[in-house]
Amino acid sequence: MSETTATANYLDAENEVLSAANGVDYAHRTTGASDATPLVMLQHFRGNLDNWDPALVDALARGRRVITFDNRGVAASSGTTPNTMAQMALDAIDFIEALEVGEVDLLGFSIGSFLAQEIALVRPSIVRNLVLASAAPQGASGMHGWAPEVIDAVGKPEPSPADYLGVFFTGSEAGQAAGQQVAGRIFGARTVDRDAPTTWQTRLAQYDAVCAWGQPNHSMLERVSAICMPVFVANGDSDPMILPRYSYLLAGLIPGARLKIYPDAAHGFLFQHHAEFAADVDVFLTGVSDEEVSSQ
Amino acid sequence: MSETTATANYLDAENEVLSAANGVDYAHRTTGASDATPLVMLQHFRGNLDNWDPALVDALARGRRVITFDNRGVAASSGTTPNTMAQMALDAIDFIEALEVGEVDLLGFSIGSFLAQEIALVRPSIVRNLVLASAAPQGASGMHGWAPEVIDAVGKPEPSPADYLGVFFTGSEAGQAAGQQVAGRIFGARTVDRDAPTTWQTRLAQYDAVCAWGQPNHSMLERVSAICMPVFVANGDSDPMILPRYSYLLAGLIPGARLKIYPDAAHGFLFQHHAEFAADVDVFLTGVSDEEVSSQ
Repeated sequence: MSETTATANYLDAENEVLSAANGVDYAHRTTGASDATPLVMLQHFRGNLDNWDPALVDALARGRRVITFDNRGVAASSGTTPNTMAQMALDAIDFIEALEVGEVDLLGFSIGSFLAQEIALVRPSIVRNLVLASAAPQGASGMHGWAPEVIDAVGKPEPSPADYLGVFFTGSEAGQAAGQQVAGRIFGARTVDRDAPTTWQTRLAQYDAVCAWGQPNHSMLERVSAICMPVFVANGDSDPMILPRYSYLLAGLIPGARLKIYPDAAHGFLFQHHAEFAADVDVFLTGVSDEEVSSQ
Repeated sequence: MSETTATANYLDAENEVLSAANGVDYAHRTTGASDATPLVMLQHFRGNLDNWDPALVDALARGRRVITFDNRGVAASSGTTPNTMAQMALDAIDFIEALEVGEVDLLGFSIGSFLAQEIALVRPSIVRNLVLASAAPQGASGMHGWAPEVIDAVGKPEPSPADYLGVFFTGSEAGQAAGQQVAGRIFGARTVDRDAPTTWQTRLAQYDAVCAWGQPNHSMLERVSAICMPVFVANGDSDPMILPRYSYLLAGLIPGARLKIYPDAAHGFLFQHHAEFAADVDVFLTGVSDEEVSSQ
């Protein structure tokens, strides 16, 4: 793998490039200095390296190495974004294999959670623990594409800050205040060496994959019961993009899964509640290696 | 219907008999004096009228009429207990129809929650709102009969108080203290006109039905998505009899369902947390008539 330099905070993490066996050059950043199993983060619809809240990455990186990356065709990575979750998952596996670290912990957010499920099912040997944030299982009914007001907002060529806030945060005073803080950290705090923006090709291909994932197919729901590693499912209680009911469904279908729903929070619950969520993830990642998941 | 006398508390509620069109004489009690839609309670495995915590019934009856009853063949009701949930549900429907009140709210607890689902699916016109406590959908994998330590405890001819406490309450100090209080209210507080005990025939037939309900059948899970009235799903976080994951599953499969998991609580969570649970049920029953369920 390429030389990586772990840093103490995400805002200062260098943009690095890792060339994988599939010929793709993956843009990525590393935060934290632990030698333990790294946590690899799988990003949301149209997101790049800068769309991870630095406060969340820093909180997660206190106990471990955190690796963020752009998948094939996304932002500064080379290639073209594929239009199925299955191919995106294979591309993510190639990146993880190129890290040459053996197994990793995975944190998938939104469509990243779809990839995380795919990876856990197709290459379980590289996944130690799985965190599914704002997640849904393939085939669940009622999620064929985002809701009209959601895709109208985040699917347009140039979404505005208001579009972002409306999907990622609730309309309450606390939700909007959190949104302003998160937006400041994501869009304003890093002033040099920002990632490349994601393209319209990425937007179209990712949304093709979203619509394919959401085609209702009850029998397809059964496959996540084969996920065999410890799983933590988390969402905001008011997520308009991926409804909490799909988190319930995942936690009901995956044996032993833990579930937590965060209050007064929408799609960006993990940024809004970054300290609490990072602490919960830390308990999950450090605890489940030694003991059975005890909550069920 | 037979004359019913609403009373202010469950311990003083009279044992009454209602003869239904199916020829069964149903033992039942009524608490609370409201003229509004009554709440009908569906009891757990081997339970009779006395196995409802009077503190819970009284809390629920503050805002409405609460009706408890013994189903066909159970305790003081006439007839023989059938060995399928479907037939038990039809027997419960006959009791509800005999009340001549039109639609009711239903609170099903444990196997009572199985009947509540059946009733909602087979006779939706009589169900306004549905509360599913310690519930599971038919066909979910991993629930073919209670866990060995659970059926060993509550399935024996004469379960002891310790057997009851071990399944209905957690082993924590708070859990066991709550259990002692609940057991005192259920087994000791009513000294006259107690209900008849349930028979070994009832135990065998009900457990046949439990084992039939728990035969794994993924495709069967889809049917609860047809439940069309507002639903509140609730359980303890440490229920050994019906694991919380089945509550997640129900809340994920039933459109718009609300979900709440109560802390440090096992099968008897609704008795242990009777004030909080009754308040949550009250908010659910009084709120959902006028507005859409907003949590999803």
